[in-house]
Amino acid sequence: MQGLAVMGHGVVGSGVVELFYMNRDSIEARAGESLELKHVLDLREFPGLAYSDKFTTDFNDILSDPEVTVVAEVMGGLKPAYDYTKQLLMAGKSVVTSNKELVAAKGAELLALAKEHNVNYMFEASVGGGIPIIRPIHQCLAANTITEILGILNGTTNFIMTKMIKEGMAFDDALALAQQLGYAERNPSADVDGHDACRKICILASIAYGKHVYPAQVRTEGITKITETDVAFAKVHGSVIKLIGRTRMQENGKVQCTVSPMLVSKESPLSMVDDVFNAIMVRGDATGDVMFYGKGAGKLPTASAVVADMIDCARHKEARKAIFWEDGAPDYVDDYKSEQMAVYVHAKAANIETAYDEVNQVFGCVEALDYADAPAHEIAFVIPKAPVGEMEEKLKSLSMQIEPINVFWVCE
Amino acid sequence: MQGLAVMGHGVVGSGVVELFYMNRDSIEARAGESLELKHVLDLREFPGLAYSDKFTTDFNDILSDPEVTVVAEVMGGLKPAYDYTKQLLMAGKSVVTSNKELVAAKGAELLALAKEHNVNYMFEASVGGGIPIIRPIHQCLAANTITEILGILNGTTNFIMTKMIKEGMAFDDALALAQQLGYAERNPSADVDGHDACRKICILASIAYGKHVYPAQVRTEGITKITETDVAFAKVHGSVIKLIGRTRMQENGKVQCTVSPMLVSKESPLSMVDDVFNAIMVRGDATGDVMFYGKGAGKLPTASAVVADMIDCARHKEARKAIFWEDGAPDYVDDYKSEQMAVYVHAKAANIETAYDEVNQVFGCVEALDYADAPAHEIAFVIPKAPVGEMEEKLKSLSMQIEPINVFWVCE
Repeated sequence: MQGLAVMGHGVVGSGVVELFYMNRDSIEARAGESLELKHVLDLREFPGLAYSDKFTTDFNDILSDPEVTVVAEVMGGLKPAYDYTKQLLMAGKSVVTSNKELVAAKGAELLALAKEHNVNYMFEASVGGGIPIIRPIHQCLAANTITEILGILNGTTNFIMTKMIKEGMAFDDALALAQQLGYAERNPSADVDGHDACRKICILASIAYGKHVYPAQVRTEGITKITETDVAFAKVHGSVIKLIGRTRMQENGKVQCTVSPMLVSKESPLSMVDDVFNAIMVRGDATGDVMFYGKGAGKLPTASAVVADMIDCARHKEARKAIFWEDGAPDYVDDYKSEQMAVYVHAKAANIETAYDEVNQVFGCVEALDYADAPAHEIAFVIPKAPVGEMEEKLKSLSMQIEPINVFWVCE
Repeated sequence: MQGLAVMGHGVVGSGVVELFYMNRDSIEARAGESLELKHVLDLREFPGLAYSDKFTTDFNDILSDPEVTVVAEVMGGLKPAYDYTKQLLMAGKSVVTSNKELVAAKGAELLALAKEHNVNYMFEASVGGGIPIIRPIHQCLAANTITEILGILNGTTNFIMTKMIKEGMAFDDALALAQQLGYAERNPSADVDGHDACRKICILASIAYGKHVYPAQVRTEGITKITETDVAFAKVHGSVIKLIGRTRMQENGKVQCTVSPMLVSKESPLSMVDDVFNAIMVRGDATGDVMFYGKGAGKLPTASAVVADMIDCARHKEARKAIFWEDGAPDYVDDYKSEQMAVYVHAKAANIETAYDEVNQVFGCVEALDYADAPAHEIAFVIPKAPVGEMEEKLKSLSMQIEPINVFWVCE
């Protein structure tokens, strides 16, 4: 018998317990051992549950229980999750988590600690909810060099973009609807400003390339500035605008990692990912494009990923799994300005004809976008692929007659 | 050091060797051990290759080499692959394969043999080429009860359907084009009659539900009868026609498993999978719908899955992995007639008005499909969800004035 504990009885934590009891037979069969849920840590009280006797408010009940071998940390946030996780790993207990904030901030350190104490630290649930992605990247694509990962990693922003694209809603209205439906928090910043997607692309970049990418190293831009006009111009381009987390290994051994709205061609399967769904496109030198699609959040999908990790830990109590990455050099994440991208520019223009004369002169031949009801004195165009830094300098050099509103990259 | 061998130097086999040498450093790092390619078995000669000295025409060179621990069987077919695989497993060597025919025909037996001899038999490459699917189903979804799997499992037929749907080509022309491009064999039966997809859904059903489903137990229908008219009627329904492998666990403990053309709603992500791409939708009670997408065939994608399995075998030389299924009872696969499905019927009708009077009377209220240039004296309609067996009986009972041309299920 191995003992389990769950820290945090919120949405995911209660889902973990529910799923454990619901599919217990098959879970134990797959773990190859009988499993018992021994403790649920939460400061709140939950009277009337079938497992009310498991609750504790004292972390030490878990830490000091020699029968507990696997702990699910589903509290979220850095405090006290970081400290608890460290103590558990040092005590020789495996920890699994859905806590992307903690993995993105402290993954390298916690993985090293797990390795040192010959236990596991697993986080399949931290990216893509119930979509299997951490293991497939690590294992199934092991024979493959991953050249690039592109992901729609945040369901809330994808829901908002879908409403803007399919129903012509304005950003504020789409956000209000997402809040009404419970998809967005009252303070939506973590989603709409891209921080949540940033943590997830950090984790994917770290696992794909073996060195930790920290959120502070990632150029992160959210979706708050996107307008209905951008959506319409993108449509003319044969594209939709999606919030994309992207990472790419360069020939110089440094990595690119960004979160930003991008124009995604309607030919790309990523363009068809709507509503709260997530999708992660993994590009390999051997596999080509492989995409993983599903609900990126929600109680049971996320809980199922947590429980799968718990099974794996229980099964491999003696044999540590190989997921690992280390810290990179301070300059391991390269300046985004060295990226070569085609770029979409939406700008105010006093005189459209002379504005195009100017941009064509500055950028070479741009692709002008236009549609019947486009606002007067606004233009949008796509600059052919070039180093982003140069393009930004040239944009600054434009005359007063052209005033950029939004500048987005075009996804390849 | 562990020794490797490759049996079969065709498209996939040569890809395995190429990939091994191309990414050898990272492959050995992930295997945790140095690896050496010791033998390549093929009856043909391949002069001038950098590894020409590895070739042998004698299987016993591999079988009797004590250094060889992992063998890739990429010969295809049952003979002599089945016999060789048995001998290797009995000799304590792990075998990995892309041979879906062999896995679908003999999986239960070979897995039992591997278990008995404490080695691995792995076949990630047998379904979906380079798409990770066997491991994700087995591991990542371990906490989940899989309620249904729906897959576009054959790239050749999906290419043909895409040409019929997007370019209005006739089946024969689309097939000829697929042959020209090398996507279809000169004898295309294995693809267009659904046998290839059948083997793959057998493997997925076996792994999802733990008991072997054999191809002969599966109602298999190909795409040869689909006409441009069907494609047009489906469009009116808001659907596309795709060849779908489908398996579902029923409450009576028996499994459904079929391969057939189905109407797939344009709302479903499966409808957007075009050209030679494959996609597998896995429905779980906890995860909801999770989809895996990518190139389902091709030299390097398939080879990358084979090599990933080889790495896993080398890494887990001492610890057998848990993939396993056993034989089911003879009636484990249930009669498809007990399935409840909505059904599309395309029929000749002498008089359209009286034909609709009749079908509405027989089936209750059907959904009539019609488009501007529809052939005279042909109708198409969708019968609401009902047991398929009953529906087939009722179809037979229709008067002479209605002559069914095609009958397809509607995907939910």
